[in-house]
Amino acid sequence: MSDPRPIGIFDSGVGGLTVLREILRRTPQESLTYLGDNARAPYGTRPDAEVRRFSIECLDLLVDQDVKALVVACNTSTAVALGEYRRRYDIPVLGVIRPGAQAAALATRTRRVGVIATPATIRTHAYFDAIKEENPGVEVYEHATPTLVPLVEAGVLAGEAAVAAVAEALGPLLGQRDGRGEFIHPLPASAKVDTLLLGCTHYPLLRPIIQAAVGEGVAIVDSATATAGALAELLSVNGLEAPGTTRGTAADAGRAGHDAPTERAAPPTRRLLTTGDLGAFQALVSRLFGVDFPSAEWVSVGADAA
Amino acid sequence: MSDPRPIGIFDSGVGGLTVLREILRRTPQESLTYLGDNARAPYGTRPDAEVRRFSIECLDLLVDQDVKALVVACNTSTAVALGEYRRRYDIPVLGVIRPGAQAAALATRTRRVGVIATPATIRTHAYFDAIKEENPGVEVYEHATPTLVPLVEAGVLAGEAAVAAVAEALGPLLGQRDGRGEFIHPLPASAKVDTLLLGCTHYPLLRPIIQAAVGEGVAIVDSATATAGALAELLSVNGLEAPGTTRGTAADAGRAGHDAPTERAAPPTRRLLTTGDLGAFQALVSRLFGVDFPSAEWVSVGADAA
Repeated sequence: MSDPRPIGIFDSGVGGLTVLREILRRTPQESLTYLGDNARAPYGTRPDAEVRRFSIECLDLLVDQDVKALVVACNTSTAVALGEYRRRYDIPVLGVIRPGAQAAALATRTRRVGVIATPATIRTHAYFDAIKEENPGVEVYEHATPTLVPLVEAGVLAGEAAVAAVAEALGPLLGQRDGRGEFIHPLPASAKVDTLLLGCTHYPLLRPIIQAAVGEGVAIVDSATATAGALAELLSVNGLEAPGTTRGTAADAGRAGHDAPTERAAPPTRRLLTTGDLGAFQALVSRLFGVDFPSAEWVSVGADAA
Repeated sequence: MSDPRPIGIFDSGVGGLTVLREILRRTPQESLTYLGDNARAPYGTRPDAEVRRFSIECLDLLVDQDVKALVVACNTSTAVALGEYRRRYDIPVLGVIRPGAQAAALATRTRRVGVIATPATIRTHAYFDAIKEENPGVEVYEHATPTLVPLVEAGVLAGEAAVAAVAEALGPLLGQRDGRGEFIHPLPASAKVDTLLLGCTHYPLLRPIIQAAVGEGVAIVDSATATAGALAELLSVNGLEAPGTTRGTAADAGRAGHDAPTERAAPPTRRLLTTGDLGAFQALVSRLFGVDFPSAEWVSVGADAA
């Protein structure tokens, strides 16, 4: 069984492109259609009812494009109404929270996990709840880091300013440091996390700096990578993989090609859609991800849609 | 690492005793304290705020008894506020919904699962959401069966009346039958479930009749068994097992006894607490579960508590 239709990926803006990037890496044979609701981003400060309505308008548009599965690559939207999207559409709908929580619960050895995310996501306790669902014995330390998304959207991904901002944001999870970066008030051992979950799709872009700040002893888990893994599993389990998908090792791949010579895969398609300013979106995408992303197209959703 | 303290099990009434029974079967070395809030049962028809408040009063009482983990063996209470209990207590809190959903998502081969539960549980879509979290490609058919709890509480667990009531309740999931039990309007194949999840802790008491009604082709999964399994895993993963717990095969058990001769387990304790009428509780418990249950004690919680 296979299915050549694209996967729809939705985010309020550009953060979800870290999820797209991981999906491209993990399942390169899949066609992808990304929609960023940049005209109305960020969602994190909006009331739940608005997040729900905007998200459904965007997801409806993707479903109208005949996608075979939806990825809600927006933490706020996932936290607010994932269940509702699943009841609305008859195709699989994957969120970013559960895969990240699952990976974090598996990664921790000391059963102490830190979670950083936007204030909106932290307020829902969605990651706390999802990690506890995996293993109620894991202690979860939630911490809102409101400065990091503006940092990323300003294109500041490296350098002294980024290092300082990340150290400042992570301080309460790591203990207080002096001007030379030495701990003056280290956390007690009982409160030390051995795993840090990046609960916002923007944060993987700061991963090298975050890893340097927390040190090698702390495992970093990000929802983008975990979601790409969960998507691959979902497609496989439900017989939704693109035609010509090979499973397992390279040897298996050769065998599959021999067994099924008539199943020739069409080249996968990649489309980037935005509701916002096309030039600004393109500029931000190439600043954050380089030039090897396809050109974007403008679409209209909601009240603006004709 | 081990922990001799009891596990606290909470339910609004007697349904959670099916969970207690499975925990006794699965982890007989564990001490257990069960609290049924029979004075205020059933919870299914109460507003969320009340369910939350009553549950917290009961869970506080169990935590005051120095339990090492809490099992919320009440679907309504789990659906309404499990996350809140987890944020309130610093011991692991396990609900019944996720383990059942996980078992159902694993059991289905055709990716079509039916869920029966009380109207209150179905309204929350908690099982739908939890199964979709396991695998968003599974189709979930939710169906409220309001007549089954009264049937169980009346002690009608077998016989023609029970068979007729179960057939009637399951009709919409199975298709319509005539007076002789033959299908006159069978469901289309596209809507046939191959797995039925019993989403209420009372329903395992009707399991033989339900299995006969759905036929051998449908796997029955119940939250009580799944929760006992999840609890065993939770205790093991978090080093919370009772002293003297042996893991794995009988051969392993012999070896463990040899390696650690000083770790001698005290006999586990079992306590049944109810907020309701002691005589009525005892009578119902022995009617449903036979006489090998310990005698109950009356406790007072909430506004009644001195």
